[in-house]
Amino acid sequence: MTIFGERLLNAVRRCRTPVLVGLDPRRDQLPPGLQPAADAEPQSVATAYAEFCRGVIDVVAPSVPAVKPQAAFFEQLGAPGMVALAEVITYAREKGLLVILDGKRNDIGSTAAAYADAYLGQESPWGADALTVNPYLGSDSLEPFVEVARQRESGVFVLVKTSNPGSHLLQDLVAQEQTIYQRVAAVVEQLAQQTCADTPYGSVGAVVGATYPEQLAELRQSMAHTWLLVPGFGAQGGSAADVSGAFDDHGGGAIINSSRAIIFAYHRKPYQDRYGPQQWQRCVEEATRDMAQQLAAETPAGSLLDESTL
Amino acid sequence: MTIFGERLLNAVRRCRTPVLVGLDPRRDQLPPGLQPAADAEPQSVATAYAEFCRGVIDVVAPSVPAVKPQAAFFEQLGAPGMVALAEVITYAREKGLLVILDGKRNDIGSTAAAYADAYLGQESPWGADALTVNPYLGSDSLEPFVEVARQRESGVFVLVKTSNPGSHLLQDLVAQEQTIYQRVAAVVEQLAQQTCADTPYGSVGAVVGATYPEQLAELRQSMAHTWLLVPGFGAQGGSAADVSGAFDDHGGGAIINSSRAIIFAYHRKPYQDRYGPQQWQRCVEEATRDMAQQLAAETPAGSLLDESTL
Repeated sequence: MTIFGERLLNAVRRCRTPVLVGLDPRRDQLPPGLQPAADAEPQSVATAYAEFCRGVIDVVAPSVPAVKPQAAFFEQLGAPGMVALAEVITYAREKGLLVILDGKRNDIGSTAAAYADAYLGQESPWGADALTVNPYLGSDSLEPFVEVARQRESGVFVLVKTSNPGSHLLQDLVAQEQTIYQRVAAVVEQLAQQTCADTPYGSVGAVVGATYPEQLAELRQSMAHTWLLVPGFGAQGGSAADVSGAFDDHGGGAIINSSRAIIFAYHRKPYQDRYGPQQWQRCVEEATRDMAQQLAAETPAGSLLDESTL
Repeated sequence: MTIFGERLLNAVRRCRTPVLVGLDPRRDQLPPGLQPAADAEPQSVATAYAEFCRGVIDVVAPSVPAVKPQAAFFEQLGAPGMVALAEVITYAREKGLLVILDGKRNDIGSTAAAYADAYLGQESPWGADALTVNPYLGSDSLEPFVEVARQRESGVFVLVKTSNPGSHLLQDLVAQEQTIYQRVAAVVEQLAQQTCADTPYGSVGAVVGATYPEQLAELRQSMAHTWLLVPGFGAQGGSAADVSGAFDDHGGGAIINSSRAIIFAYHRKPYQDRYGPQQWQRCVEEATRDMAQQLAAETPAGSLLDESTL
């Protein structure tokens, strides 16, 4: 039995990079060859999404530890989209990737347990390795997720400090000398610690946006047993320097997500000019490599390239 | 064009009750005739869920304004469950019910818009009239939902003060002399007000648990344009007296949810003894009527029975 925190660490070390590729298929941005007709049924769009995501997975599977499908875009297509989501998760796992489903699920008691049962572990219907969850309902809404995750060698990433400008509304409020995100972080770290056994990181992680570099560094310090999932790199404005504080000294402890800037690299510079839409997979490949090199050059993730850390 | 707040008010007045029936199919509690075999595939369980929910809908459609399917239990079955969910929503709408999907979705920007596009309005793939959403990410995560809801005569119910014991962890914290739930309530009320036109209630509602009667009454006062969706009645311990403060003087402004206590009434007293599992629909019918009578007798919802309010 290998707990999720350890599985993720092994995958990051094997690939020597913390790049997490977001699978956010958007109909209007699919490469020309995969564009569904304007009047296409949801079923055809779902087929295109699955094909596109398989195409991305084929390219990135040898070089990154994990992918993060965004549930919303699949749900947007109705039931056919959900079938495509299940296919994409299965395909990614077959290619050796860890799959972190970004669904931000949340509920209480047995309903939270139903979500966990739905998504976590190979034996579940969707078969993801981890799921993002939202903490607004309190500890008793997180515990059912953590319990199922623990049983199934799976993980849970709790939203702590999100990357959007409006995250200050609640998350930065100060109550009893602690911000709300610090309080959530303390609960998450405690849950992570409880799942650790003798491994450095547990089954519970935290989502902390790349757009808040100071908080990233602060939370890396206060959440010693917690993996950080860092969105907001690239398209949302976070740079390699911004995420530097998210890592531990060995380049572990954080995975850095990029979605649009990688999967739709074909219509942004320099990839657009170099290859163009027909070679969109080549663009994905180079954008992924460029991101990995940036992180290696400008953050402690560079230590992963050091032979002695393996 | 009739905004959601008005559609809900019309439905509550027509039925003369604020009872909201929760559709939470749980495999181990289905009536004997609908119990799937122990080794049944998810597809068979999904078929049983759809049949059970249609059976509940047939009974309650003439007497209540709305139903609230819980997404988690359908998601738990994988893709076949999602097909069943879509069928159940369509069936309920055909029977004249408003459908509030309990999915507690949340995300930022265009991803939040994708969730809204997925679930809100008859033209969406799932076709719900309203969706529950979680406010942890801030105002900019709520606005895309509200915008789509406004365009589609649909509604959004934002979690404000949830019914579980652990809701105190974040929701009751005091920052700048306001609890977190009060701050969320203020944002929600403002959004609701903006969607109102000249109607008493807007397209944005709030979820406030029956287990917190004082907060219910307080929020009814401070959220004058906001429908309250009140879970926690019955199985979770909330009584008619507890939810009394949720209503306005005319018996409007609140819908009271009961799930298990209605749909699985066949295995609790007095319905169990009176009819037993074979007549489970009769149990649903009586449990619904009993709840409506309780609310009419002990809360301002009694005013709905008054001819002059019609």
